[in-house]
Amino acid sequence: MKTLIVVSHPTLDQSQTQQFLKASAATIADATWHHLDASLPFDPAQEQALLRAADRIIFQFPLYWYAAPASLYQWLDEVWVRSAVYDAHGGLLTGKSLGLVVNLGQPARGYQLGGAEGVSLSELFSPFAALARKTGLRMLAPLVIDQFSYQDEAAHQKLLVAYQQYLTLAHPDKLSEQADWWLDQLADLGDQAALVGQTLATRQETLVHLQETINELKEGEED
Amino acid sequence: MKTLIVVSHPTLDQSQTQQFLKASAATIADATWHHLDASLPFDPAQEQALLRAADRIIFQFPLYWYAAPASLYQWLDEVWVRSAVYDAHGGLLTGKSLGLVVNLGQPARGYQLGGAEGVSLSELFSPFAALARKTGLRMLAPLVIDQFSYQDEAAHQKLLVAYQQYLTLAHPDKLSEQADWWLDQLADLGDQAALVGQTLATRQETLVHLQETINELKEGEED
Repeated sequence: MKTLIVVSHPTLDQSQTQQFLKASAATIADATWHHLDASLPFDPAQEQALLRAADRIIFQFPLYWYAAPASLYQWLDEVWVRSAVYDAHGGLLTGKSLGLVVNLGQPARGYQLGGAEGVSLSELFSPFAALARKTGLRMLAPLVIDQFSYQDEAAHQKLLVAYQQYLTLAHPDKLSEQADWWLDQLADLGDQAALVGQTLATRQETLVHLQETINELKEGEED
Repeated sequence: MKTLIVVSHPTLDQSQTQQFLKASAATIADATWHHLDASLPFDPAQEQALLRAADRIIFQFPLYWYAAPASLYQWLDEVWVRSAVYDAHGGLLTGKSLGLVVNLGQPARGYQLGGAEGVSLSELFSPFAALARKTGLRMLAPLVIDQFSYQDEAAHQKLLVAYQQYLTLAHPDKLSEQADWWLDQLADLGDQAALVGQTLATRQETLVHLQETINELKEGEED
């Protein structure tokens, strides 16, 4: 799967979060890091070629005043013109997926009714959901990073894994795909790790069998 | 009341809607028309002075991909910095009001669950509501203009009135303020109109009395 990471950030070099994500993405051959603010003025044809080549499009940005920075909107306004998004047969982006990777300066728990921000991220991201719906993109649940610089090393490692999975898995939220991802990682580590990987793979098969048995039992109950 | 009309539109001269609104605003002495795309690059100090001088701030834009054009976000990112919005005592914008004047290429009725767009304008505008909440601005119900070029002359006249009221009335949705606005307009038209105005003013007083009587009756019921 080819992933286009569309990064909107006016001061990328000063962002610890973005530098961390950039390093995390660098090991993934099929992921293209595309910093919008460094690509101005946009060449629409070139930008549209990037869009066409991607299977997954990621909008990656810090939340400024409850929205993305200006460059993302400028990119949408200038690049996502009608002819780039639809042809006579329908949506040109249909079948691709859209992900949001959003970092927050405030705690994520504030984004709810009665929270410090009083509004949910799902509400704030509704324009992106509407865009996905309109253009036939399958939208992924957002990957939200809050207060990166206050996180400890363990949290950063978890983020690295979650981000790499978000860039590469068809369904990043599915436990079975996450398990397969770990097996692939271990297989890459050589003989000793392969042994651990083999054990995990066997366990994973056992888990799948157990899950099937449970499902059969449940179906029996429903009859 | 001083009103700052912050217009975000990359091709203003080609927009019939915006040209109509510009002409409608031109007769209002206390309204400042401020076209963002013509003010780039922003001088933050100058922009902040405009903000400070205003009692009402209007964000006026066409809906592009369910959000405002890029220049509005750029203005927010560069001008609404922390020091311009808060001081040691709290919000510098507290007590001002925020209005949205948004024009749509699609029918407004499509913006609801089950409608062609599948999402409400209230959801799409939630980032602006959050911004108002955060900065102490009182938010007005948006003035939405759909498919201006398909509207007939009568609809355009109604829009002109609604827009001028939106720019000048403390509570543009209140019928009593709208009635007073009409009286002011008529008073300006000279002697003959003043007579009509006087009649309307008398009727308005009668209506207020009737309303008070009804309210008293209702209170009696509740006792």
